[in-house]
Amino acid sequence: MQIEIKHGDGSSRTGCFATTRGVVNTPVFMPVGTQGTVKAMSPDELREIGARIILCNTYHLHLRPGHETISQVGGLHKFINWSGPILTDSGGFQVFSLAALRKIREDGVEFRSHIDGSLQFLGPEKAMEIQCEIGSDIAMAFDECTPYPAEREYAVKSLELTTRWARQCRDYLDMKRERYGNHMLDLFGIVQGGMYKDLRKRSLEELVNIGFDGYAAGGLSVGESKEEMYDIIGTVGKMMPADQPRYLMGVGDLRDVLIAVENGFDMFDCVMPTRNARNGTLFTSTGRISIKRTEYKADPSPLDPDCSCYTCRNYSKAFLRHMFLSKEILSMRLNTMHNLHFYLSFFEKMRVAIAENRFTSFKKKWEGIFEQDI
Amino acid sequence: MQIEIKHGDGSSRTGCFATTRGVVNTPVFMPVGTQGTVKAMSPDELREIGARIILCNTYHLHLRPGHETISQVGGLHKFINWSGPILTDSGGFQVFSLAALRKIREDGVEFRSHIDGSLQFLGPEKAMEIQCEIGSDIAMAFDECTPYPAEREYAVKSLELTTRWARQCRDYLDMKRERYGNHMLDLFGIVQGGMYKDLRKRSLEELVNIGFDGYAAGGLSVGESKEEMYDIIGTVGKMMPADQPRYLMGVGDLRDVLIAVENGFDMFDCVMPTRNARNGTLFTSTGRISIKRTEYKADPSPLDPDCSCYTCRNYSKAFLRHMFLSKEILSMRLNTMHNLHFYLSFFEKMRVAIAENRFTSFKKKWEGIFEQDI
Repeated sequence: MQIEIKHGDGSSRTGCFATTRGVVNTPVFMPVGTQGTVKAMSPDELREIGARIILCNTYHLHLRPGHETISQVGGLHKFINWSGPILTDSGGFQVFSLAALRKIREDGVEFRSHIDGSLQFLGPEKAMEIQCEIGSDIAMAFDECTPYPAEREYAVKSLELTTRWARQCRDYLDMKRERYGNHMLDLFGIVQGGMYKDLRKRSLEELVNIGFDGYAAGGLSVGESKEEMYDIIGTVGKMMPADQPRYLMGVGDLRDVLIAVENGFDMFDCVMPTRNARNGTLFTSTGRISIKRTEYKADPSPLDPDCSCYTCRNYSKAFLRHMFLSKEILSMRLNTMHNLHFYLSFFEKMRVAIAENRFTSFKKKWEGIFEQDI
Repeated sequence: MQIEIKHGDGSSRTGCFATTRGVVNTPVFMPVGTQGTVKAMSPDELREIGARIILCNTYHLHLRPGHETISQVGGLHKFINWSGPILTDSGGFQVFSLAALRKIREDGVEFRSHIDGSLQFLGPEKAMEIQCEIGSDIAMAFDECTPYPAEREYAVKSLELTTRWARQCRDYLDMKRERYGNHMLDLFGIVQGGMYKDLRKRSLEELVNIGFDGYAAGGLSVGESKEEMYDIIGTVGKMMPADQPRYLMGVGDLRDVLIAVENGFDMFDCVMPTRNARNGTLFTSTGRISIKRTEYKADPSPLDPDCSCYTCRNYSKAFLRHMFLSKEILSMRLNTMHNLHFYLSFFEKMRVAIAENRFTSFKKKWEGIFEQDI
């Protein structure tokens, strides 16, 4: 996979990459559809607000309904009624953050399901098999997400294991490709190394030696300070091959996104807009607001007069507050629609700003707005 | 208000009535939007599946967000983004079924809110004031919903109170009409009388003497046997004025609907299709099914091959089962969409069957299907 860079502005860049299911413009935000649905949204609504690629979780889909089931009913795209590209994570992050009693072995991780406590196993080959069988467009290599904080010694061992697993993922797919021909998914490698810049560099070099279709930074937004995160983002982004997509995993606070785009990253995913929406925290062009506040009780104005989403076209703050306090499903729908529309529009505006050589002022303007936040 | 009967088939009848916000074809099913939203649905989706009139609850909207708030932001239709007719119940039924510590007085009922325990009051004038202020199209008179079982003596007193309150509702609206002119909502009277046929007759006669725009049967589906319910439905329906709408409140099991339409009723509301949807019980052309059953785990077929709803056009039973087990919001959306579409289509087919003089065979066919139910 190649990324076609149309324009660079400093280290930030805008371009596109192609999948068999459509072209994706970058920088891109991928809404998160953990269990095969972006919470509260229909696929039609996602398309309408400009989502072009979504993320699904291998770990969750493997546990329920199981990849065999998805394969039997015609693959993930048909199952969830989404015809655009799907990126699937490898399950590595979830195994380390959700599963109980995990036991790391050389060939993978044994763990207990967070749903029913059953004994499960994921490893590089299994993660590849699952992602192939469900029909992912972009698969992620199986990695160990280095926890924070981690001693240097642990971080070294962890990155070495991640490199060995990455090699096995690549080999598995190459073997499959040889056997079944060309029409295979793209595979991204995940850079680990904790908060050690030299280890991050080493991890990336080892992955580049193996050769992937894109490169991702993992193990961030796991408890470290903003300074540490920005330090790694600033180191890793610009070192990644310039002609391939660069993906910053799980980082979605827009302040962090601005820093990451400034440092050359192209792809992002995060549950923040959807989770915040369900909690009543809404993004607007003048900062975040909490919709439950008493001041909105009889406020007839839309959430954001500058917004063209379904929610803002049709509803008042008073209604959104009433729906939220009444715990209605429509509250989660309208809030999610708005927040995702906000994110996708933000990325669209960011692409234009980069193309027009004014990313620096764009970043400054939004940093000012985010400072006003609740 | 007059109902224009286009065709009768036995005592069943199909026709239409007009409101300032649109014509409604009967027999009609009104989806229930308790707190200002039909749970899990958007107004656009409701229109798309053929809903033409919805019901909202005076009791709930009075407690939250308050009718003053709704009035301040431009009325109920604008607030909830529904431009079609809205029927509002009077709150009588909810006061008797939801509120704690209710105390019936001659001028109304004092009760404690089920939300925060605060002391509240509803009576005929207050119920009218609320329904006027929020801009209801069809208001219901404030009644005492006679509980089941009720001694004859209690039922008599209760119906007498309901008649006195109905008179006060009528007077309140007549006074308003005189003062502000013609553009007022329609008002329906509610027949009580428990399971005593002669009391039901007396209640209806007293209401007809006062004069309403339509008549409703209340106090049914409150714990009585099907035989008792059918006995009252068979007595009351045909006695109601033939040139005005006849509304059977809160009865929505389609077996009961068939009996009621056979006995001349025109209007229905019920939470059954929406509540069942959220619980995973789905209506199909061959009977109800529970979507969580293991047999659907890898079933690629739609819920109902004869159904043209969004859910059946786009999703497999396997996906619907996965969404339900995963407790996803999309599960409630897709299930509700399907069940409401089923109900609204059922009513459409029933209207055609009556118009084509084949209601008897229509009823027989569906009674056979409902016998297959889970």
